[in-house]
Amino acid sequence: MIIDLNCDMGESFGVWKMGDDAGVMPWVSSVNIACGFHAGDFMTIQRTVILAAEHGVAIGAHVSLPDLQGFGRREMALSPAEAHAATLYQIGALAAFAHAQGQRLHHVKPHGALYNMAAKDARLADAIAHAVRDLDPRLILVGLAGSALPHAGAQLGLVVAHEAFADRRYRADGLLTPRHEDGAVIHEVDAAVAQAIQIATQGRARTRDGKLVDIRADTLCVHGDRPDAAAFAHRLNEALHKAGVGIGRIAA
Amino acid sequence: MIIDLNCDMGESFGVWKMGDDAGVMPWVSSVNIACGFHAGDFMTIQRTVILAAEHGVAIGAHVSLPDLQGFGRREMALSPAEAHAATLYQIGALAAFAHAQGQRLHHVKPHGALYNMAAKDARLADAIAHAVRDLDPRLILVGLAGSALPHAGAQLGLVVAHEAFADRRYRADGLLTPRHEDGAVIHEVDAAVAQAIQIATQGRARTRDGKLVDIRADTLCVHGDRPDAAAFAHRLNEALHKAGVGIGRIAA
Amino acid sequence: MIIDLNCDMGESFGVWKMGDDAGVMPWVSSVNIACGFHAGDFMTIQRTVILAAEHGVAIGAHVSLPDLQGFGRREMALSPAEAHAATLYQIGALAAFAHAQGQRLHHVKPHGALYNMAAKDARLADAIAHAVRDLDPRLILVGLAGSALPHAGAQLGLVVAHEAFADRRYRADGLLTPRHEDGAVIHEVDAAVAQAIQIATQGRARTRDGKLVDIRADTLCVHGDRPDAAAFAHRLNEALHKAGVGIGRIAA
Amino acid sequence: MIIDLNCDMGESFGVWKMGDDAGVMPWVSSVNIACGFHAGDFMTIQRTVILAAEHGVAIGAHVSLPDLQGFGRREMALSPAEAHAATLYQIGALAAFAHAQGQRLHHVKPHGALYNMAAKDARLADAIAHAVRDLDPRLILVGLAGSALPHAGAQLGLVVAHEAFADRRYRADGLLTPRHEDGAVIHEVDAAVAQAIQIATQGRARTRDGKLVDIRADTLCVHGDRPDAAAFAHRLNEALHKAGVGIGRIAA
Repeated sequence: MIIDLNCDMGESFGVWKMGDDAGVMPWVSSVNIACGFHAGDFMTIQRTVILAAEHGVAIGAHVSLPDLQGFGRREMALSPAEAHAATLYQIGALAAFAHAQGQRLHHVKPHGALYNMAAKDARLADAIAHAVRDLDPRLILVGLAGSALPHAGAQLGLVVAHEAFADRRYRADGLLTPRHEDGAVIHEVDAAVAQAIQIATQGRARTRDGKLVDIRADTLCVHGDRPDAAAFAHRLNEALHKAGVGIGRIAA
Repeated sequence: MIIDLNCDMGESFGVWKMGDDAGVMPWVSSVNIACGFHAGDFMTIQRTVILAAEHGVAIGAHVSLPDLQGFGRREMALSPAEAHAATLYQIGALAAFAHAQGQRLHHVKPHGALYNMAAKDARLADAIAHAVRDLDPRLILVGLAGSALPHAGAQLGLVVAHEAFADRRYRADGLLTPRHEDGAVIHEVDAAVAQAIQIATQGRARTRDGKLVDIRADTLCVHGDRPDAAAFAHRLNEALHKAGVGIGRIAA
Repeated sequence: MIIDLNCDMGESFGVWKMGDDAGVMPWVSSVNIACGFHAGDFMTIQRTVILAAEHGVAIGAHVSLPDLQGFGRREMALSPAEAHAATLYQIGALAAFAHAQGQRLHHVKPHGALYNMAAKDARLADAIAHAVRDLDPRLILVGLAGSALPHAGAQLGLVVAHEAFADRRYRADGLLTPRHEDGAVIHEVDAAVAQAIQIATQGRARTRDGKLVDIRADTLCVHGDRPDAAAFAHRLNEALHKAGVGIGRIAA
Repeated sequence: MIIDLNCDMGESFGVWKMGDDAGVMPWVSSVNIACGFHAGDFMTIQRTVILAAEHGVAIGAHVSLPDLQGFGRREMALSPAEAHAATLYQIGALAAFAHAQGQRLHHVKPHGALYNMAAKDARLADAIAHAVRDLDPRLILVGLAGSALPHAGAQLGLVVAHEAFADRRYRADGLLTPRHEDGAVIHEVDAAVAQAIQIATQGRARTRDGKLVDIRADTLCVHGDRPDAAAFAHRLNEALHKAGVGIGRIAA
């Protein structure tokens, strides 16, 4: 039994720092690196790609809406054609830094508002999947487990990865409890680790009112913006190993 | 005898249009496409790359300082490390659109202030040449004829192209008359075409006071921001053919 | 009988030009100048404000979502608090150029997607109206005739101006036919001028299927992005005068 | 004996935080707030202006080159006309937030590379001074003590403030030791406080090799990006009081 452990990285911009990339890197098997649209100027991208290459971690492009001030978290009315071109642009920019380090780009995952929009909107999901395939059909497309994005990728023949979350509470319909609702985030480390192990070993999670819901997960996300992100990633890595779950990148 | 005829393209941004790319495209053998730093949002890039691919024209990245408002024409104190990473980012972004059309990126040429800075500053030139080589050593590096940039590229083993101008007046030292001086631009089409033919066939140009100066040119630039750019490119193309000069992309 | 004739201006950015501000300026009584968020860098703003001051035209701030690439036409999920602060920022920036010319800022009008959002969303409309009042309660707030924005402004005690369009077709409910529907734009100059006169003199317009609908209009918008904008504004100005309608800025 | 104690603030951007504005605010008499060009989106500006108003601290505009990625620290070839318009834009934007809080803008100080350029380049200094006077001749212009900027302001009849630094080492010519040289920054709190007191009470500072140099200072800068900025400001405030120096904003 093997699962991928991923983390969003390279979310600094210019003089502004975010996250503890060096602290989290040893405990994950893949990273999603910001491409300049919601975070990640070209110097930050280069530094983060080099760090990932040193750790032998799979490098992915974390593509976003063009919204630096809003950190890519504000929904914008991008047309499918715009989403397609924006995705190509960002993947290409990030891939250049990977190639310069002798690495291949491994996967693509939308960020923030684009992630949520692509989980629900089939046309947007299809546009993003086409951009990935148009550039390199060996790239893996990562999206919310069971949502429109991995569905669109699979339709095009891409290898897709369904993503689940250790520290977000699931609803009975398999979707995430919206952030503005009570109990949306599992703050206690033990409970989040327990949910991760349950998802990895049994393919299911417990809702707030105790029901069990099926969650398919090829990759688990460690939130890099937790203040304890490095310790949490370390803890999760060890707990998964103890539970008999290996940690490794998704096979293309 | 063969020379490359190139033009800067894709210099629109969002709703704002610039240039007559479709009108110039049939008459040139290579184009330098803006990568989003001085012009060229992702939709413009895509449209321009598709147009170039349809015409079988060599596609290059026109890399710039990050300055949309100033159109990349204001000098900025970028460090060599920043110039290296900025170049990688832009080449990568543009290459993605080329790959999506089944094309390979052919060359890289700095734009505006970066072009001038890289012609004079050996450390900046070296940083840009390294970025090109780090990404793909088959890419051709284009710079001002006889300047620091092609020199730096050649030092690294890159194929380089020396660029000359039909409609700019040369000085006795082989450099361009600065734009703010009288006679810097050759406005008359006949005179500009004559200079192009002289450079292409004899490897030299006449200065303002009548001296002859040696100009090595692998490629001639057609300024896309001339109001008569399409007609001028057509005229130049025909005049070169009549003078026995073939027009074709630079061989890698 | 007096009506205001307004036009959106200052929509160039850097090297990119848009519109014929100098050609339209003599025929209108007020202008809405882009503030840097959808168009209008600081040089363009300065040039446009000086031009407006020379013509004695009322100067307004054309505030927008922060989206240069999309020209402020893509809806974005801005919170009311963000809309409030974005409005303050833009009004202030534009007002500085007016003050430097010895002029007072006269009015504020949202642009593009923000205009449409503020016409429908009462909380957003209220946030924008508060920003206007917080800065200067003598500023006039301009919005789609009969919509949430003038309503919110009036609630706060602001002078508001209801805006109508000469060249857009109205529906039976008094709203504009969406641009993607057939017949949304009245391309024929005669028909557009006729609608303007009917709105100005009778307070009503004819829908596509011939019904009459009440349209209150304190100001009529001349679209500056028509290729014939200057001629159209001239034509409209003369036709209104001939119909006995004076043209003048809205009184505060 | 009274001196102003100032600090650069509002240097966060979007989700990225910088500085401890709330911790420093009680110990200074004036603040320079970023206007969106090197830092400070409209939400950050609003928050910072409200904080300053609550503390009764003098509010100034910290105007910059347009370079978010480089934090306004990279020199750019802005023309005097561009510097004039960029300054107007930024002062206006910031002033709007001050006015909305019932405050008047008190002063203007350039940031980073623009600060250094305006200290040396008389034409640039003059352009900035004109922008300040064009908007409001009661605004105080702050610049490097003894440099071209306060000189240009005084020529135009503005009240100017000469700025000195507690924690930067002065050279025998009265200028700052460049940051890349050894000993440029006085890291020890005691030594920096001692230099501040010597400047405030005697109008002079000691160079690295022990010479005394005259330094006129109307205002002392507390660097907000020191990790100990709040403690340092507190310490400096108390030490100045003990030395018989009152702390207060510059009188217009």
